[in-house]
Amino acid sequence: MKLDAYLAERRAAVDRELGSRLARSLAAAPRRLAEAMSYAVLEGGKRLRPILVLASAEAVRPGAGPEALGYACAVELVHAYSLVHDDLPAMDDDDLRRGRPTCHKVHGEALAILAGDALVTEAFGWTAALPPPLGGELCGELARAAGAAGMVGGQVLDVVATGAGVPSAAAAVEAIHLGKTGALLGACASGGALCAGAPPATVGRLRRYGELLGLAFQAADDVLDVEGDPEERGKRRGGDAELGKATLVAALGLEGARRRAHEQAEAASAQLDGLEEPSVLRELALYAAARTR
Amino acid sequence: MKLDAYLAERRAAVDRELGSRLARSLAAAPRRLAEAMSYAVLEGGKRLRPILVLASAEAVRPGAGPEALGYACAVELVHAYSLVHDDLPAMDDDDLRRGRPTCHKVHGEALAILAGDALVTEAFGWTAALPPPLGGELCGELARAAGAAGMVGGQVLDVVATGAGVPSAAAAVEAIHLGKTGALLGACASGGALCAGAPPATVGRLRRYGELLGLAFQAADDVLDVEGDPEERGKRRGGDAELGKATLVAALGLEGARRRAHEQAEAASAQLDGLEEPSVLRELALYAAARTR
Repeated sequence: MKLDAYLAERRAAVDRELGSRLARSLAAAPRRLAEAMSYAVLEGGKRLRPILVLASAEAVRPGAGPEALGYACAVELVHAYSLVHDDLPAMDDDDLRRGRPTCHKVHGEALAILAGDALVTEAFGWTAALPPPLGGELCGELARAAGAAGMVGGQVLDVVATGAGVPSAAAAVEAIHLGKTGALLGACASGGALCAGAPPATVGRLRRYGELLGLAFQAADDVLDVEGDPEERGKRRGGDAELGKATLVAALGLEGARRRAHEQAEAASAQLDGLEEPSVLRELALYAAARTR
Repeated sequence: MKLDAYLAERRAAVDRELGSRLARSLAAAPRRLAEAMSYAVLEGGKRLRPILVLASAEAVRPGAGPEALGYACAVELVHAYSLVHDDLPAMDDDDLRRGRPTCHKVHGEALAILAGDALVTEAFGWTAALPPPLGGELCGELARAAGAAGMVGGQVLDVVATGAGVPSAAAAVEAIHLGKTGALLGACASGGALCAGAPPATVGRLRRYGELLGLAFQAADDVLDVEGDPEERGKRRGGDAELGKATLVAALGLEGARRRAHEQAEAASAQLDGLEEPSVLRELALYAAARTR
């Protein structure tokens, strides 16, 4: 399949660049910190976020991929830090991530907190190193998406809602999804567009595309939590319900949540009209809603 | 005393700006996150770091203070986040900070971790909002100072050294001080210089001034831990030794540590030759070494 080949090729490019950037950045860091950070970032992950940066840049201007690679790696650091902190005992208290022990299980809780702190900081360092005015613009884009009104805010809403025992309305669940996942995906797509020199209106449409892609992705995730293949996903069925998580399936039923995933994917795709080369982004939207793991 | 009046006046200006910026930034954040972040930042703190930003800008170009206010507030967010995370149970496990319960004691551990995460992210957002190319340059300066080879790295060295039971050499203790305190103070002074349009050589000298100021400050802190007035400091005597912290007093003795504080302050002051208006920064260096709390 064409999208699979594209994803595999871009993922390999991201992995190479991430590995060499991280080695350079961590040369002056304490050894144990460097190990915990590398453990959190390397070996694993679909690299969906950096690939979205590259694909958005290419959708605006074919061939623009390489210029966006530094920012693509930076957003992956932000994603990795968020997983390390989400897994902590005080948060989701997870022992396993991608089939491996979580960062705090291997390196201890203090090192895991500090590794996360250093990863998000390094992400801004990598982004700031891009030529002006792009570096500052992208730092602003990333901070808005990752901060109190974005990713961290979504995580707070999730923590507050979990176990609250109230069946949440679909809008409240989608506010969590938008924060936890949509905001950063939005900054991936808008950031790729900025790297490719897109005008503000296009940057805005691609930001919205990324947010809607995140909503489709999370709606599909709620469906998969109920009916996905536990082996293929590496997670047992019904885990979210057991934890008392607010999910779209609880709010809309299984069929309603499935329909919502497709609606969000279609809304995402509608943002792409007029782009130079939208086909990869369109396929990504379909994939987000229809994926099996 | 002239320095005291200067510090009080600048502190009031920083507090005003911090309060209004934070209120604007947190308007779209979940309420509980906004409360935890505000608790960590407002009401308390000497605001030494933002004042250093302003004083460095003014030392380069008298009257340059206001332009540097945004960056000054951003470094205070970084300082506040580092205190919230340092106080966590998995780290120093402190119940009190500036005479008040620590952030995790009031808001819970999950919210404290997330508030810290959002504060450091917001710091980069505020910095990135400065006009190009300054925004990107300062984001880079801040990321280097706060990250794996700077502040977070220093905290890791401290965590690893604490309780290791080995009397550390002075150089090892100063590597911790340089990371935990010197790096960010360095980025305050260099950042202020950048805001005032200083040439690269001046930026470098002021960065070194800030690092040495941090070393003087921490050497004096180790002395005060042994002989300071517990009431004036809000900390009991000998706390560091009890925790098995690596200190300069353990490495050099009380007199040796006191001498080191003054040596570092003199070395800091020597970086200031040739500046337009160095007097406040010279007084700050003397204050760092000779302070009583």
